[in-house]
Amino acid sequence: MLKNVHRIRIEWGDCDPAGIVFYPRYFEWFDRCTHHLFEAATGMIKKDMLEKYGGAGIALLEARAEFKMSSHYGEDIDVESEVVEFRRSSFFLEHRVTKKGEPMLKGYETRLWTVRHPEDPARLKSAPMPTEIIAAFQRDTPPR
Amino acid sequence: MLKNVHRIRIEWGDCDPAGIVFYPRYFEWFDRCTHHLFEAATGMIKKDMLEKYGGAGIALLEARAEFKMSSHYGEDIDVESEVVEFRRSSFFLEHRVTKKGEPMLKGYETRLWTVRHPEDPARLKSAPMPTEIIAAFQRDTPPR
Amino acid sequence: MLKNVHRIRIEWGDCDPAGIVFYPRYFEWFDRCTHHLFEAATGMIKKDMLEKYGGAGIALLEARAEFKMSSHYGEDIDVESEVVEFRRSSFFLEHRVTKKGEPMLKGYETRLWTVRHPEDPARLKSAPMPTEIIAAFQRDTPPR
Amino acid sequence: MLKNVHRIRIEWGDCDPAGIVFYPRYFEWFDRCTHHLFEAATGMIKKDMLEKYGGAGIALLEARAEFKMSSHYGEDIDVESEVVEFRRSSFFLEHRVTKKGEPMLKGYETRLWTVRHPEDPARLKSAPMPTEIIAAFQRDTPPR
Repeated sequence: MLKNVHRIRIEWGDCDPAGIVFYPRYFEWFDRCTHHLFEAATGMIKKDMLEKYGGAGIALLEARAEFKMSSHYGEDIDVESEVVEFRRSSFFLEHRVTKKGEPMLKGYETRLWTVRHPEDPARLKSAPMPTEIIAAFQRDTPPR
Repeated sequence: MLKNVHRIRIEWGDCDPAGIVFYPRYFEWFDRCTHHLFEAATGMIKKDMLEKYGGAGIALLEARAEFKMSSHYGEDIDVESEVVEFRRSSFFLEHRVTKKGEPMLKGYETRLWTVRHPEDPARLKSAPMPTEIIAAFQRDTPPR
Repeated sequence: MLKNVHRIRIEWGDCDPAGIVFYPRYFEWFDRCTHHLFEAATGMIKKDMLEKYGGAGIALLEARAEFKMSSHYGEDIDVESEVVEFRRSSFFLEHRVTKKGEPMLKGYETRLWTVRHPEDPARLKSAPMPTEIIAAFQRDTPPR
Repeated sequence: MLKNVHRIRIEWGDCDPAGIVFYPRYFEWFDRCTHHLFEAATGMIKKDMLEKYGGAGIALLEARAEFKMSSHYGEDIDVESEVVEFRRSSFFLEHRVTKKGEPMLKGYETRLWTVRHPEDPARLKSAPMPTEIIAAFQRDTPPR
């Protein structure tokens, strides 16, 4: 399936008094990379994709990270993101972070395609992921 | 006029590799303290206040901070916030930050009461600050 | 074991265009609450605790959150934090988030007590959690 | 003098419930762009530059932004950064933000070259900006 790689320069303000990335930043980057992956697949930013397919959001059910190596100010890391499985409504993402090819940490997200409840637009309900979106992921990653 | 004091514990993740507060955090806190000040005045969170008075937002025209002393992880700072002047639509805020009574930095915001444009709700326009809100600021700060 | 409860007001800037908390904020709060829990146990902020016990840090091995309900601007949430198990060097934390008593999400962290490597202070190694710190957790939560 | 342009994609998590950039993000970006400008001038990240020239930091005296137009999720903005004046120890930066060439906001920072106090390394004092660094700024911006 389609993979997307996003390079991140670690900035001064991303790091804590120990001189390493303050860990919630990685989750900001995972969220960002999930958006970029969907954009790479569909050619649309999330807002437009949701509008086109009648979605309300790609809600988060679970987020997780396993930390192996720390990163520091001024370094570049690469996040390779992939949907590893689409189920009916839910789908599973992996974010593999490397620095100069060396594994640093891995992130995991479980998300859900949601739509507005027909009787109460303030409420969201899960719905099947549009097949057109799933199809958009069924291709090789473009060469870098 | 009404003043509001908000105490902030400086957390590990607020600080940079030099061990001091990463400066954009102060602007996060100024924004927060502006919201708390309006809440102290009107008894409503911003969303409810805007709804009651037909406002679209309290847009920011200018933000500024003058830094005097650094603060570090584990310290408590106090932000005393005040609207120093209401004009027709715009108003001026000061945020005076102290640590154990000693001045650390000062923040300034210029903001604007906005409403949705009657002919195009996607556009915002300035409007006179509701007199009821201004009146709510015309009282002494409650004793702590 | 000792539990600590930390109340968090959800601020405007914590929320995303969907009007709900941008999820990495929860991990900022989990990190904060881990620090507050250790402070409640030992009476010291992390920096002082590490200095007293010769530690280099409480490194993160894994972080995870399971999301159940969204929270919005202006709401108050309570994070109840607890070390659920101390092993030799590693320990496991839970952060249970409620809003007016209703469960919203749960966070999990696996951390490691580390010290500086005796031959190369730039490197960290795991070390047994000081027994005095473990003992400080073996007491009931003070009544609120 | 040397200018540096840094493009920023506005991410979902940079925006607030009004759907526009939460303003402290701009200051994060100004700080980032100041670092990138010094890197463009000296060819070194800040940490290495400070080490080479015996500096302790480029402390912030004042930060300011004037807001003209809002930006939204999915848009790209360009920040053109420049030191507009070097004095003895202090220097003045401008960050001009455009979207597709249209002015959005402007940022201003006043900073100070600092070194460690010779008698007390915990204290910082201002010092003349190294002439080699100033010289590194005296050149045209490389064509994009």
